[in-house]
Amino acid sequence: MIMETQWIAGGVCAPKGFKANGIHCGVRKNAGKKDLALILADHPCVAAAVYTRNKVCGAPVTVTRGHLSDGKAQACICNSGNANTCNADGIDIANAMCGALAKAVNISENDVIVASTGVIGQPLPLKPIVTGIPALAAGLAPDESGARAAAEAIMTTDTRVKQIALTIDIDGTPVTIGAMCKGSGMIAPNMATMLCFVTTDADIDRDMLSDALFAAVDKTFNRIVVDGDTSTNDMTAIMASGMAGNRRVVSKGEAFDAFSGGLTAALAKLAREVARDGEGATTLITVNVAGAPDGSLARSIARSVVTSPLVKTAIFGSDANVGRVLCAIGYTPGDFRADDIALSIESDAGALPVCEHSLTLPFPEETALAILNRPEVIINIDMNQGGSEATAWGCDLTYGYVHINGDYRS
Amino acid sequence: MIMETQWIAGGVCAPKGFKANGIHCGVRKNAGKKDLALILADHPCVAAAVYTRNKVCGAPVTVTRGHLSDGKAQACICNSGNANTCNADGIDIANAMCGALAKAVNISENDVIVASTGVIGQPLPLKPIVTGIPALAAGLAPDESGARAAAEAIMTTDTRVKQIALTIDIDGTPVTIGAMCKGSGMIAPNMATMLCFVTTDADIDRDMLSDALFAAVDKTFNRIVVDGDTSTNDMTAIMASGMAGNRRVVSKGEAFDAFSGGLTAALAKLAREVARDGEGATTLITVNVAGAPDGSLARSIARSVVTSPLVKTAIFGSDANVGRVLCAIGYTPGDFRADDIALSIESDAGALPVCEHSLTLPFPEETALAILNRPEVIINIDMNQGGSEATAWGCDLTYGYVHINGDYRS
Repeated sequence: MIMETQWIAGGVCAPKGFKANGIHCGVRKNAGKKDLALILADHPCVAAAVYTRNKVCGAPVTVTRGHLSDGKAQACICNSGNANTCNADGIDIANAMCGALAKAVNISENDVIVASTGVIGQPLPLKPIVTGIPALAAGLAPDESGARAAAEAIMTTDTRVKQIALTIDIDGTPVTIGAMCKGSGMIAPNMATMLCFVTTDADIDRDMLSDALFAAVDKTFNRIVVDGDTSTNDMTAIMASGMAGNRRVVSKGEAFDAFSGGLTAALAKLAREVARDGEGATTLITVNVAGAPDGSLARSIARSVVTSPLVKTAIFGSDANVGRVLCAIGYTPGDFRADDIALSIESDAGALPVCEHSLTLPFPEETALAILNRPEVIINIDMNQGGSEATAWGCDLTYGYVHINGDYRS
Repeated sequence: MIMETQWIAGGVCAPKGFKANGIHCGVRKNAGKKDLALILADHPCVAAAVYTRNKVCGAPVTVTRGHLSDGKAQACICNSGNANTCNADGIDIANAMCGALAKAVNISENDVIVASTGVIGQPLPLKPIVTGIPALAAGLAPDESGARAAAEAIMTTDTRVKQIALTIDIDGTPVTIGAMCKGSGMIAPNMATMLCFVTTDADIDRDMLSDALFAAVDKTFNRIVVDGDTSTNDMTAIMASGMAGNRRVVSKGEAFDAFSGGLTAALAKLAREVARDGEGATTLITVNVAGAPDGSLARSIARSVVTSPLVKTAIFGSDANVGRVLCAIGYTPGDFRADDIALSIESDAGALPVCEHSLTLPFPEETALAILNRPEVIINIDMNQGGSEATAWGCDLTYGYVHINGDYRS
């Protein structure tokens, strides 16, 4: 039997062996906003994670890194509203969160993934979390309602819940992957505090799980959260329960490729959702670079354009501002020519060439406006000097971004 | 006789041997905004310039580079409203501007510095410029009124005229330096199209003039317009009439140092004005980095912080957001430690330590608010791991920036 990838409901609870919940415990003052999420596996899972490369690193990241050094985890707890970073007692607090959860649900403290997101540099109060854990555990549900509550509880300035699940086929056995994520801060990729928690019922060993996760993150979140330029608390973690009953994946091959492909598809969809849900954003911008001399330059050029504040504001204003795109390409560091660039803009309203040989083409403004005035816009760049390509995602820069970030901490 | 540096009136007309004017010729539709500036020297001058490093380079930059290859110039013409960049006929238009001016004022076409600033990628109409040149030349004035008219005509989204003049002493002879500049686009330094035109009556040879200009730009505009990350049309040009009557500066020494110091002081003041006058800006931000392992890292860290949109919006909101500063330091590329950072905020309302050993200090919010709610704010960073320092200037990110750039081209 051949199964194709199928998008399904259920988020992190879609795979066999997981429950989830999310509550308001009081880290945030606003009682209407959930602030504590839990994913609990029925049994210890094979686990792996990818962490921020920021030199200033959140206390929960340090604690989780230690807990996952044995390749196992059974639960994931995450609060929003406070990043527990740059505080003198940060490690103690993160450890205490793990200890309190482990005791409440009778698992090993060492099997807890802990994460925090929110303001940096303010002490995270332990009391509301410890007080809230019994209710959090009591409300665990193995279905869509539990998954959604957890996905809501990790949101900060996100405007939309971001969760996903899909089924793939491994050697004839249906295997499910679920994931939830938060992220929004997309004036530049380097600002997005991005958390993603993935569950799967695949039976897979630690090395294969870790390889698949690294490969998937590199093709997805790293295209919005570029190497080395990440927030203090970024993390993508995965737990595999093994309950799907597939033959255990222990080496590269067809089964690994199927799992890896499914994981990449899931994270790609979430990465686009993160880009689309940039703070204050109204437009998802995709930048495709082709004809670059090498892959690294292709990525750098795509990144220059998608992070240019002048390009982002132009897209907000539905302005086909060719000059700003050329300018952002031109200041990209590296050794390349900028004298034969072709540009086109594209959306579900059509496509329009706007530049050839690095010279602006005449084009009807109303056609450009119709193309740009859509929720998803693509900028296609051909450097005409090689065979390398790259894609980057971002969003427009709006009044909303300034509003959100001018008054976030208070 | 010992003379100290004295700030005086007169802008680019303060030095002996220069006239200036600025008019509305019609490149811009708005008849109330001047769009064509001229500085004319009585005689051919020694001249030098520093240009953008952007790989996409404006046609006027290419033409000026050619004209200055002999180290001489007598006039500078600059339009605003259109950058004459990425147009098929750009070089022809820039040459035609020089030719029309040269004919009207009877100088060599090869002695004209030409510049354009404004939207990229739209054909620059030659007719209003050629038609306007007679009136532009007829109205030339050797005083403050002429200098101010020229300084107004090069403004784009600038909210303030930026001009300056000072007198220094070279071997007992008073020598004057005047300058005007435009620049505003400061969400990141890499976006500021920055033009600066300097006049002086110093008698100085080409090599010395060029060395002094490079040194001064490196300590001033390059701290807001960082190496390699410049707009397509950036240029700083200087003309020296030699009419001050000082003994000609032909080598390094006291006289060179006096001239170089005066030029650096003039450009530093203008660079701060450019930073302060960022599009929509309400606050001038100065970032001082000390204790860095080397000068290059000190500059990179200062730049990371001053360009961080999250730091910029926090300053707009008068929010002492220590975490955002630490995060921006942490994602700076390079090999350094981030575990012993001290931070303080400072303004004319006082100074306040907010972080030690990379941990947030408790501080009274009302004190922080009083410090940050001022037109000039300083962020002091001590990396505690070396002896290198750097300073960078920038501005806050506001609703005004989005407004200006979301609707600039139309």
